[in-house]
Amino acid sequence: MSRPLRWGMIGGGEGAFIGAVHRMAARVDGRYQLIAAVPSSDPEKSKRSGVALGLAPDRVYPSVEALVAGEAKRADGVEVVSVVTPNHMHYSQCAALLEAGLDVICDKPLTTNLDDAKKLLALASAKQRLLGVTFNYTGYPMVRLARALIAEGSLGKLRVVQVEYPQGWLATALEKTGQKQAAWRTDPKQAGAGALGDIGSHAFQLAEFVTGQQVDELIADVSTMVPGRAIDDNVNVLLRFAGGARGSLWASQVAHGHLNSLCLRVYCEEGSLQWKQETPEELLVTRAGEAPRLMRRGDPGTPTSSVGLPGGHPEGFIEAFSQLYTDFAEHVSARLEAREPAKSATIAPNVVTGTRVMAFIDAVLKSGQQSSWKKI
Amino acid sequence: MSRPLRWGMIGGGEGAFIGAVHRMAARVDGRYQLIAAVPSSDPEKSKRSGVALGLAPDRVYPSVEALVAGEAKRADGVEVVSVVTPNHMHYSQCAALLEAGLDVICDKPLTTNLDDAKKLLALASAKQRLLGVTFNYTGYPMVRLARALIAEGSLGKLRVVQVEYPQGWLATALEKTGQKQAAWRTDPKQAGAGALGDIGSHAFQLAEFVTGQQVDELIADVSTMVPGRAIDDNVNVLLRFAGGARGSLWASQVAHGHLNSLCLRVYCEEGSLQWKQETPEELLVTRAGEAPRLMRRGDPGTPTSSVGLPGGHPEGFIEAFSQLYTDFAEHVSARLEAREPAKSATIAPNVVTGTRVMAFIDAVLKSGQQSSWKKI
Amino acid sequence: MSRPLRWGMIGGGEGAFIGAVHRMAARVDGRYQLIAAVPSSDPEKSKRSGVALGLAPDRVYPSVEALVAGEAKRADGVEVVSVVTPNHMHYSQCAALLEAGLDVICDKPLTTNLDDAKKLLALASAKQRLLGVTFNYTGYPMVRLARALIAEGSLGKLRVVQVEYPQGWLATALEKTGQKQAAWRTDPKQAGAGALGDIGSHAFQLAEFVTGQQVDELIADVSTMVPGRAIDDNVNVLLRFAGGARGSLWASQVAHGHLNSLCLRVYCEEGSLQWKQETPEELLVTRAGEAPRLMRRGDPGTPTSSVGLPGGHPEGFIEAFSQLYTDFAEHVSARLEAREPAKSATIAPNVVTGTRVMAFIDAVLKSGQQSSWKKI
Amino acid sequence: MSRPLRWGMIGGGEGAFIGAVHRMAARVDGRYQLIAAVPSSDPEKSKRSGVALGLAPDRVYPSVEALVAGEAKRADGVEVVSVVTPNHMHYSQCAALLEAGLDVICDKPLTTNLDDAKKLLALASAKQRLLGVTFNYTGYPMVRLARALIAEGSLGKLRVVQVEYPQGWLATALEKTGQKQAAWRTDPKQAGAGALGDIGSHAFQLAEFVTGQQVDELIADVSTMVPGRAIDDNVNVLLRFAGGARGSLWASQVAHGHLNSLCLRVYCEEGSLQWKQETPEELLVTRAGEAPRLMRRGDPGTPTSSVGLPGGHPEGFIEAFSQLYTDFAEHVSARLEAREPAKSATIAPNVVTGTRVMAFIDAVLKSGQQSSWKKI
Repeated sequence: MSRPLRWGMIGGGEGAFIGAVHRMAARVDGRYQLIAAVPSSDPEKSKRSGVALGLAPDRVYPSVEALVAGEAKRADGVEVVSVVTPNHMHYSQCAALLEAGLDVICDKPLTTNLDDAKKLLALASAKQRLLGVTFNYTGYPMVRLARALIAEGSLGKLRVVQVEYPQGWLATALEKTGQKQAAWRTDPKQAGAGALGDIGSHAFQLAEFVTGQQVDELIADVSTMVPGRAIDDNVNVLLRFAGGARGSLWASQVAHGHLNSLCLRVYCEEGSLQWKQETPEELLVTRAGEAPRLMRRGDPGTPTSSVGLPGGHPEGFIEAFSQLYTDFAEHVSARLEAREPAKSATIAPNVVTGTRVMAFIDAVLKSGQQSSWKKI
Repeated sequence: MSRPLRWGMIGGGEGAFIGAVHRMAARVDGRYQLIAAVPSSDPEKSKRSGVALGLAPDRVYPSVEALVAGEAKRADGVEVVSVVTPNHMHYSQCAALLEAGLDVICDKPLTTNLDDAKKLLALASAKQRLLGVTFNYTGYPMVRLARALIAEGSLGKLRVVQVEYPQGWLATALEKTGQKQAAWRTDPKQAGAGALGDIGSHAFQLAEFVTGQQVDELIADVSTMVPGRAIDDNVNVLLRFAGGARGSLWASQVAHGHLNSLCLRVYCEEGSLQWKQETPEELLVTRAGEAPRLMRRGDPGTPTSSVGLPGGHPEGFIEAFSQLYTDFAEHVSARLEAREPAKSATIAPNVVTGTRVMAFIDAVLKSGQQSSWKKI
Repeated sequence: MSRPLRWGMIGGGEGAFIGAVHRMAARVDGRYQLIAAVPSSDPEKSKRSGVALGLAPDRVYPSVEALVAGEAKRADGVEVVSVVTPNHMHYSQCAALLEAGLDVICDKPLTTNLDDAKKLLALASAKQRLLGVTFNYTGYPMVRLARALIAEGSLGKLRVVQVEYPQGWLATALEKTGQKQAAWRTDPKQAGAGALGDIGSHAFQLAEFVTGQQVDELIADVSTMVPGRAIDDNVNVLLRFAGGARGSLWASQVAHGHLNSLCLRVYCEEGSLQWKQETPEELLVTRAGEAPRLMRRGDPGTPTSSVGLPGGHPEGFIEAFSQLYTDFAEHVSARLEAREPAKSATIAPNVVTGTRVMAFIDAVLKSGQQSSWKKI
Repeated sequence: MSRPLRWGMIGGGEGAFIGAVHRMAARVDGRYQLIAAVPSSDPEKSKRSGVALGLAPDRVYPSVEALVAGEAKRADGVEVVSVVTPNHMHYSQCAALLEAGLDVICDKPLTTNLDDAKKLLALASAKQRLLGVTFNYTGYPMVRLARALIAEGSLGKLRVVQVEYPQGWLATALEKTGQKQAAWRTDPKQAGAGALGDIGSHAFQLAEFVTGQQVDELIADVSTMVPGRAIDDNVNVLLRFAGGARGSLWASQVAHGHLNSLCLRVYCEEGSLQWKQETPEELLVTRAGEAPRLMRRGDPGTPTSSVGLPGGHPEGFIEAFSQLYTDFAEHVSARLEAREPAKSATIAPNVVTGTRVMAFIDAVLKSGQQSSWKKI
């Protein structure tokens, strides 16, 4: 096994949700050592967060530029940095880190518009550095099994893809109560798009990840259901895949009763698959002419997770997130060790994925405005 | 209780599925006596079927015209007649029966095109006779509870409606094996539309029945997934309701793993509902700020079915179908007894419903051809 | 197909639950014509019920004796009679009907004590008449599939049997509110045993029916949880099967949240089965070394029901009950036609089954009193 | 927040399952720093494991005695030590650590016999040190909610407790294939009891933890289903609680189709609860006179976990395990800081719990041998 990587983090200070998730994921994985950070744009908060994280005070930096400069001077400087700030800050921060020759892991969505994403794509390519994007649902073992089952071809030609991601937490104007998560996620300036960007992006990416096919064309209804909200909170989309498959995508944050109900169903010529994020250890597999089979992680034919718990010992969100960190670590270690990364790690979402998702968001918004079919 | 009704049937001879269902439904209800029929267009088969049904030989007729003429001569002639023939025969048969002053119960869809439906609507109105249409899923007690919960207003304004009806039985070219059901349902001449007419119609009607709101506009992808098939077998539709709600509808007969998976989900300002036809005794109800409640028929606040089994004693397809027969009987008896029908019976689907569904099918087909939004 | 049978009923007048179920079951089946009855021991109620059932007034009798005498005089007298009275009346009524040479269908439990059951067993044998007992859960297609899967041997040696039947409707002293069902079912004189006789009997019979093996020995805790109740309402039993399998049985009427949750799980050397009455169309089948398979009625390898609905069109309680009526009709018709009944009908529960269940109840009560293992 | 604790581990070297779980749990929690260990009794393996764990070579010890001696000499010596060796080694190792004045966390079951457990109970009490026992299922938020709901009294008097823990992984003689987990768990010398000790112990402890009541008396059937196995693999038990409640417990390792299906159902006078380990984020709560409510972590009224993910972001086995580590850390930190531990931490299972479970195992084995009711 490779040595632990020297790891930095941008964002993720006090009260931040996703930063804590990234840290737990990296810790479960065990291949990262957090040694430097820019926890917050607020210096006081940054300092407190640095202490809580056990960082050396001189490695808690006030800005990305300062971190880049400070770490560059050290023999034991950071090798890979995670960006877990609000969406609108991703672009400039990722760019600065890539420019400095660092490997980068960025929370999704990659940027708030397609142009910025394309620039990062070009930059990462020019610099030959990793720009991993944490479309974390691709880390679940049963999602990877789904992808593998389709890729191996035994289910036959793709026909129909139904993907949805309903949540209920924004069914009221929560953003007006001062709730931090709600506030930035419903602010067009910080978030770019609403339900579409926050969760529709996951749904789209999951559909393409599992099917191995690309959406070619779409038509969308982009709605705001909560009065006074400045951003979309419900999106219905029809999908046409390049290979002829059809489908639909629904993302909503006003769907009372749903917590985080990402669900993908794929129908092929010779069978079908169903996976639900809230019961992530199961994959319902039906083959033509047979009764459905409820495959659970641990059943014969299912993959081992990076965490390695036996079946029936539920692995969840953190463990799946940790799988991506495992994959990213493999990429970074491989580069440092001047070898090819393990093949299994190459499916992890990166800047190409992130750019593709931005193209999807872009097409949905245009389709919604013009009420017509749009190419991605 | 009113006396049993003298009942006739057109279609439903040997090997017919839906005719047998109508008979079981009427028998469970107990308010119908089958006394005359045109079981088949094939005279020999008609005769055999008549015997099997216990009909007097002279009341097994070769045609609707013969039945109308024969029964009109009798003091104990039929009062109400069910039409359970393939879709393309509904129009002329219903028209003939209405013209003769009979009450009619027609299997769905009412006709194979919108114009015919409009003519029947006018005729039933002119003749002041019932033309009930067996959109049978509206007969389930928990569907009626869903409708009542929305109608009473406590769930608030309608926001999102997700309805789907996937089946898998036509995922292969079953119609080429000689299977009778598959053959006529995939023949454009007999069926009109495929998955759209057969099951999409149910999905649409259920959505409007439960929400009490009308779809105003839609855009659709109408597809044929099985090579060589002459009719649609997969339909994806975006829905815009008159009151501002949004949603989508999916009907498919190529969805491996699904038997008959009609599912409706309704999201309102103050809560949501979910009902699945394959577990029809349950209704998942979430009210804003509360954990979901799994209401089962028999739980406090749930309605009594016309069959009256205690909760946990599963009532199913036949019992729900029977509820419509109960409602139709109430309409006919009320007319014969010159009184108003019970209010509960007035929600049963009729020629207005049937015509509305034909307008939906019409709009979907046009939208599919023109790739643009269409008004219903 | 045989001609319809001339059918009578004892009990099942106004307000009776199980009598109405027997009638619906027979009607769905279509092989019975109800022509005579003793609907109630109250003459006025009997008369009203007879009218409601459409019986000729002279065939609504005041007593079993009167029915036997009256029908014996007619060429078109009843051939088979259902007994749907409270448990304590079964013995004398069944005996009288058998003595008269009639075939009999009796609701379960057969009697209120083992001795009476044994006498009926001897009598039915001497008279060579059917004494069918409606352990109705054996009529579900997926229960019969479970039995067949074990009988065919591919699941291997039986190891563990877990059966339970929880209900919640008697969690309060409902019998003190005047509720008729609660009153007689908690009265030791009318019911014999409480939860044990009412539902524990079903659980035990289902376990032996599906496994094809007999319980040899048991130890039980027989409890009354609701203060002031005179009969058991919760029973826990350990089971030892003759072939070495072990298991447990739980029957309760005080289990809040359960409607009618009969559930059987069977574990063998090479696989396992799980069936739940509230979702009766499914059978979970696991074979050693494979992920579980969710078999639904209609999936390949599942049996056709007597009703014949396609899979996904839920058949329920009445349809399963109707299967027993189909089987019983086959027995009676076979005798009248002097031929062997179809083999599939021979698994229907009869007086042997009913006697066996009384032996179980007897053993549980003794074990509960003496806190020790008892042979059945 | 208190400073991280200096932590040691006994066992958990290469290939060990439960040691890795303890480490992940502690890392997710973030309050432990692993600095010393006795990874294996095999010196070579120990060395390799120490390196993989990033330990300083001089703090990888060959024995508990060596660790105690070595660490005692250091100012920065371990403060708390986890024991994750096979069951038969727990007693002497825990005793040695407690004698040395260390706080101890021991995997369950605490010992292989009741006497040893009692000695540890006395020793921990004399030394005033923590002896936490990782009955990890008590760490799930919804299990703690269940306990709280019963403790608050609104569900009323306890009536029936049904607990079960079926697994299928030992349905064949896996121990004869060289599988390490199977080998020691089916060896009476290393494991003490089989399914009873391994998982029956969890089921029993969960029942008492959630209900807050003690089992007073039991009768058991202790079986070995797999030919040639030297230890129990299926146990059925009837339970009598001190307060009058009744119930049953089933633990099996031969139940094909089950992965790790611990399930607890509790029925009280005014409602009931159901929790399943394989879907640990849900608690089904029924209150008298209401439809069941499906409470999910994150729904109103549910507790926050120590990990703090929003509802619908599945927390699983590691996160629950981590809750116990959080609780244990609070105990140790409180002692070091000479203050009372937070009240929420006091419900974590300890040597009292561990001893109680050994008394249960002891009573079950005696009852099984003597076929009679036994007091615990």
